[in-house]
Amino acid sequence: MEVKDIEEEKGKDLERAKWYTDIVQQAELADYAPVKGCMVIRPYGYALWENVQKALDQMIKDTGHQNAYFPLFIPESFMQKEKEHVEGFAPECAVVTHGGGKKLEEPLIVRPTSETIINHMFAKWVQSWRDLPLLINQWANVVRWEMRTRLFLRTTEFLWQEGHTAHASEDEAEEEAQKMLAVYKTLAEDWLALPVLTGEKTDNERFRGAVRTYCIEALMRDGKALQAGTSHFLGQNFAKAFDIKFQSAGGDLEYAWQTSWGVSTRLIGAIVLGHGDEKGLVLPPKIAPIQVVIVPIYKTDDEKAQVTKYCEQIVLALKDHARVHADMRDQYTPGWKFNHWEQKGVPIRLNIGPKDVANNVVEIVRRDNFEKMRGVKQTDLANEIPKLLLAVQKNIFERALKFRQESTVKINDYKAFKKTLDEKNGFIEASWCGSGDCEQTVKEDSKATIRLIPFGNDRTPMNDKCVHCGKPAKWQVVFARAY
Amino acid sequence: MEVKDIEEEKGKDLERAKWYTDIVQQAELADYAPVKGCMVIRPYGYALWENVQKALDQMIKDTGHQNAYFPLFIPESFMQKEKEHVEGFAPECAVVTHGGGKKLEEPLIVRPTSETIINHMFAKWVQSWRDLPLLINQWANVVRWEMRTRLFLRTTEFLWQEGHTAHASEDEAEEEAQKMLAVYKTLAEDWLALPVLTGEKTDNERFRGAVRTYCIEALMRDGKALQAGTSHFLGQNFAKAFDIKFQSAGGDLEYAWQTSWGVSTRLIGAIVLGHGDEKGLVLPPKIAPIQVVIVPIYKTDDEKAQVTKYCEQIVLALKDHARVHADMRDQYTPGWKFNHWEQKGVPIRLNIGPKDVANNVVEIVRRDNFEKMRGVKQTDLANEIPKLLLAVQKNIFERALKFRQESTVKINDYKAFKKTLDEKNGFIEASWCGSGDCEQTVKEDSKATIRLIPFGNDRTPMNDKCVHCGKPAKWQVVFARAY
Repeated sequence: MEVKDIEEEKGKDLERAKWYTDIVQQAELADYAPVKGCMVIRPYGYALWENVQKALDQMIKDTGHQNAYFPLFIPESFMQKEKEHVEGFAPECAVVTHGGGKKLEEPLIVRPTSETIINHMFAKWVQSWRDLPLLINQWANVVRWEMRTRLFLRTTEFLWQEGHTAHASEDEAEEEAQKMLAVYKTLAEDWLALPVLTGEKTDNERFRGAVRTYCIEALMRDGKALQAGTSHFLGQNFAKAFDIKFQSAGGDLEYAWQTSWGVSTRLIGAIVLGHGDEKGLVLPPKIAPIQVVIVPIYKTDDEKAQVTKYCEQIVLALKDHARVHADMRDQYTPGWKFNHWEQKGVPIRLNIGPKDVANNVVEIVRRDNFEKMRGVKQTDLANEIPKLLLAVQKNIFERALKFRQESTVKINDYKAFKKTLDEKNGFIEASWCGSGDCEQTVKEDSKATIRLIPFGNDRTPMNDKCVHCGKPAKWQVVFARAY
Repeated sequence: MEVKDIEEEKGKDLERAKWYTDIVQQAELADYAPVKGCMVIRPYGYALWENVQKALDQMIKDTGHQNAYFPLFIPESFMQKEKEHVEGFAPECAVVTHGGGKKLEEPLIVRPTSETIINHMFAKWVQSWRDLPLLINQWANVVRWEMRTRLFLRTTEFLWQEGHTAHASEDEAEEEAQKMLAVYKTLAEDWLALPVLTGEKTDNERFRGAVRTYCIEALMRDGKALQAGTSHFLGQNFAKAFDIKFQSAGGDLEYAWQTSWGVSTRLIGAIVLGHGDEKGLVLPPKIAPIQVVIVPIYKTDDEKAQVTKYCEQIVLALKDHARVHADMRDQYTPGWKFNHWEQKGVPIRLNIGPKDVANNVVEIVRRDNFEKMRGVKQTDLANEIPKLLLAVQKNIFERALKFRQESTVKINDYKAFKKTLDEKNGFIEASWCGSGDCEQTVKEDSKATIRLIPFGNDRTPMNDKCVHCGKPAKWQVVFARAY
């Protein structure tokens, strides 16, 4: 019954996969659920998700969107209204056939995404150009029946937000899709400390039902890419399928232009894989559930009393400046606690022993680089800790950016392309013919996919020929093996 | 396909039911979904829910609980492990039989409540007394296949929080169940401005699987009761069914003692029915999405320019002191806006016309009692508005409390009991024999149920005989017709 990890990997990949699932469980982010492909998000993992949510929810509201909630169940007939959409999602659906002890007249789909039911409602609410733009977001659980699953990265049920908007003009919808992509980039870079590339998906990788899919792509520390968020320009596809029409200012009846966009609990997996090291998690301070952990060190009862009192003072002094936790448990040694909190990725640790108490100082240890600062004055902490948290945040972002830069290569030759993938993975910038068949062949042969077509001038091919088939190049794209 | 309202009501009840569903839709709190018994929570309703959530989530965390997330799907076999529990919930379950295009080996239940799956995980996590207490909360959607539904009050899918805890001793679990009941009382009274009675449910009304169910009961303005939250002392029922055992400090292997507790989006219905009047919603300021609405009044373009500028100044002056919104829409008249925002229950309205601009004042109108304050100085607003919001909050609580006091009667005689119900409903305090059959007969005959058995001395019967059957009285209880 238990979720099975993706089993394709061999060698290094397998090692990395084991490291990942071990650390997710040992750090108590998540646990396997007794239902195939599902997970339990444990309190430490959920607190991390709540911090991500809080940051993103504020940005979603600041850009004029309102939260709402739509039903979990979608009538089967709704799913079939947009042809591409149903083809994309039908194989992944969980279906409710019985309710209240009876067989249902029409089966209900457990939402894999909510375009169909939300646009059914939009059709009811949108009458005039005055009702537009309609800017809605929903925080919800969704279900996609995945064959191969992995905690956070790909689970049958996951948590996400899905934005759905309707606009009076094509330009405005396009602007919206780009705006939300920019919000996702800010979330990834400024909060999760994960540098991301932005661009457009190829037709093969496009959201089923969208005209264009934009994405943010991050590079994990093993050189594999991870799609961290998508924003779709839907054109009038769903508006036509669900009859979302409005009277324009000029009096004409027109179909609305739409977008949808989402990020999910997958981001927690990105944080683990994007920053983690052999000791465990390395959490970005801005979203870490605990930013500062205090570990007391003592031998005698007398020392314990002194140190405990001092730790309490420090918690009081810091609690308005950082999310601080003192691990006063008696049954574990300081060494055990050091490992424990390193594994959990807490950005800053304060070690406090009798000498520190005597001198009114603390020892600070950074999780990101294990730098130690001895003899920091207690009175300086309220001032120093917030600065140090910012420094850690900055450092792990810059480290990830440097790693990505070093892991990005321009390649013209398919042999070199495959060699690079096998040796170190990373992002490969290459010219491509634009053919979906060629793209598919590369995928089957090398396991690399086109992560994105960059925006603007960056998509102009640097070579005349496609890196794989040698036909005339259409675009410069970014290839990688991906999670 | 659309949700059908409860159809039993006649006369006044039917009128009230229509008032309710009209106002919920007209105030844009919710809309009917295209799936039987489901609703769409619209942005205004969801913002109200978010404010309720925020207040409660903080209290849940302040009392030492941590949020987590457990799967939507529960294996059918899990539901069957606690005998009473499955009997209670099986008839209401939605069942997933197919996933990923195939028939499932074991059907999955869409959670109606999560005791079974959460306690399966607790069994894995709890080994020693050191792992206790385990204090978990989850914000989630749940599904119960209801025959008769009504927006917010009873829907097939609803949103709620469900707390689940495990303790080393019976006393500690009992204390926890009572503590969370007190939290719910605080939420209802201090935030929702709804006075509530607290007490214990009878065996007939007890949560299936619990030893004791505690509840908060509010009285709606039509004299009907509404169960607004429940907290269950589960004893060792689920611990035994799911094998949650721990090694005690003394070294013995013992079953854990447990609680569970929840409130749901039903609270939104309670706010509507508990405070609303013929003009629409009356929202408690503390949780109102908009606390102050500004309506500009002008005729000429020149006046419009002046008033608009002045309104903008007032928004700026108030925005750090209240959730303020200026309705600057051109297509609606001031009169239309007055009705619109009264219907939406915004606690305070500022009317601003050219004379107000000239005199640097505003006109304030309270939603709760329509009291008008003319000529309030603009410079006093930042100081006065927060005070006024508190006054509105206090007034609607006291009004509801007074109404409940006036609607509560002690009755010894079954004829008078029925007469009171037919004439005005309300809470009826009466003595009861303690028999579930007698209780059931009263329910069938009068539609009144025992809402609760009060705590402590308040449950000592005031009369020798049961109000219905005349047998020796066991407890003093509170009867009412209920939503």
